[in-house]
Amino acid sequence: MYRIGVDLGGTNIVSAVIDEGYNIIGKARVATNADRPAKAIFEDIAKTAFDAVKAADLTMDDVESIGIGTPGSVNKESGVIEYANNLNFDKVPAREMLNALTGKDKIYIDNDANCAALGEAVAGVGKGVRDLIAITLGTGVGAGIVVGGKLLTGCNYAGAELGHTVIVYDGEPCTCGRKGCWEAYSSATALIAQSKRAMLADPYTKMWDIAGTIDNVGGRTSFDAMRQGDPTATAVVKKYMSYLACGVTNLVNAFQPEILCIGGGIGNEGEFLLKPLRRLVAAQRYSIHAEKQTQILPAKLGNDAGIIGAAMLDE
Amino acid sequence: MYRIGVDLGGTNIVSAVIDEGYNIIGKARVATNADRPAKAIFEDIAKTAFDAVKAADLTMDDVESIGIGTPGSVNKESGVIEYANNLNFDKVPAREMLNALTGKDKIYIDNDANCAALGEAVAGVGKGVRDLIAITLGTGVGAGIVVGGKLLTGCNYAGAELGHTVIVYDGEPCTCGRKGCWEAYSSATALIAQSKRAMLADPYTKMWDIAGTIDNVGGRTSFDAMRQGDPTATAVVKKYMSYLACGVTNLVNAFQPEILCIGGGIGNEGEFLLKPLRRLVAAQRYSIHAEKQTQILPAKLGNDAGIIGAAMLDE
Repeated sequence: MYRIGVDLGGTNIVSAVIDEGYNIIGKARVATNADRPAKAIFEDIAKTAFDAVKAADLTMDDVESIGIGTPGSVNKESGVIEYANNLNFDKVPAREMLNALTGKDKIYIDNDANCAALGEAVAGVGKGVRDLIAITLGTGVGAGIVVGGKLLTGCNYAGAELGHTVIVYDGEPCTCGRKGCWEAYSSATALIAQSKRAMLADPYTKMWDIAGTIDNVGGRTSFDAMRQGDPTATAVVKKYMSYLACGVTNLVNAFQPEILCIGGGIGNEGEFLLKPLRRLVAAQRYSIHAEKQTQILPAKLGNDAGIIGAAMLDE
Repeated sequence: MYRIGVDLGGTNIVSAVIDEGYNIIGKARVATNADRPAKAIFEDIAKTAFDAVKAADLTMDDVESIGIGTPGSVNKESGVIEYANNLNFDKVPAREMLNALTGKDKIYIDNDANCAALGEAVAGVGKGVRDLIAITLGTGVGAGIVVGGKLLTGCNYAGAELGHTVIVYDGEPCTCGRKGCWEAYSSATALIAQSKRAMLADPYTKMWDIAGTIDNVGGRTSFDAMRQGDPTATAVVKKYMSYLACGVTNLVNAFQPEILCIGGGIGNEGEFLLKPLRRLVAAQRYSIHAEKQTQILPAKLGNDAGIIGAAMLDE
């Protein structure tokens, strides 16, 4: 049988058909236009689902289930998206709507970061592994936790918000209202802010040459300038790595997953990020006497992780 | 059938027989004398197990399994206690030794904080609940995590070290080698250090009258002085509550357990501790849109939690 995974993003809706080997065999995409009513967005989700089935040379009868990865908070039991601020969703009965539009009974919904973690655990870097944490270093710090092969979502499906655990008591304000969250130090957004601050204090740093203007600074700027030997950028990256390792070590001490994988924009730095990260974590982790240790690896599936994970959702 | 639970502590060894209703129906105790070789300690564990069986008017044939809660790190698969510094244990083959001494095949071993969490989840404040975190505020910050009815211990059984997650980047040195661990701010030991520091800065605080000498300061001193209206002690407790709430909110955001229970010496403050803690966590947690929220409750079983949890261990 086949399964459909849907990545419902703020910019695009992507639906894909997955075969039993977790291969994507048909895909369809449409712009989300997030300011529309939920009903119109779900009509387009159904349309992309049918288009993906067609692209795979199948019919909807060949499809066992449809899974949706969405931003925001989801009640997995009722199939209602409780709240998603970047889609203007407030108590949207996602399962009910998509059931009416597709005729399929098995419709599952979960948070997009959770779906990405499940995708990596089932078909990506953690294939065959029962315990995995996937971290995405992008606009925020996204996270999904797989324990014993299942997503850890907590009693109200709002868990795994690892970006919103404080690592700097009384520190930088976070979008969530707390101060000092890991996300406020280790997201790409945070690194950009740290880079800009350093540039304003040093008009000679190569970060100026690389970015052109301060508005053009990205998550790569400090890493690129460091590779060119710039001391100010090097100091920015070292400090960033220290925050990142602090949060990652916290997760290792709490979960001791077999694999902790890192993706997202900053994750694209690859071994230039992961090698020093492994050094810092190994020097700090609590489990010094254990023979087996968490492996810190790059995420493997990129954007497909969320789609494959969504397709693999079940009750 | 009946089960035996063993609490192997630095001071005492306590064995107890548990019936199917999780009642303790026979108990035996002996001093650990932790400076002895592991062999002598395990002979006494076996002796207390037989004594507990006798006290319950049973024989060892009535016993299905023996579970041990031990400090330190345990390989649950091999049944070896890998390391426990306060018992001078280094790779002690606990299962093998106790099997030879008792003739029982089903011998299970886990960390003592994990056993206490399992006990609270199975027979205590979390009876009937699938997801629970138990925190013990004592010499350190002990923690055990139950997810889906099972202990979360990680790939190397060294997980759930929630006391060793940093909440104050570059903060107070912790016994584990990191700086700023939750344990270094929220254990009874930390509160005592915070109280002493405040006393040295204020020779008029009632904490002096309550404690007599600075060496006599305990985990209750600041709470007692606050109840008498002392402003310095009140400031100490408020700050302590803020650190405690920071760590608890981190756990709520990460795990969203149905119940988070608090025990240990500081836990004895009861509602005087829990009521303000609930206020601070409710104001900070990420899950504002969820209908269901983590309940913060007092641990119920006290020292018996670890024994009952040990008895309930299985593969």
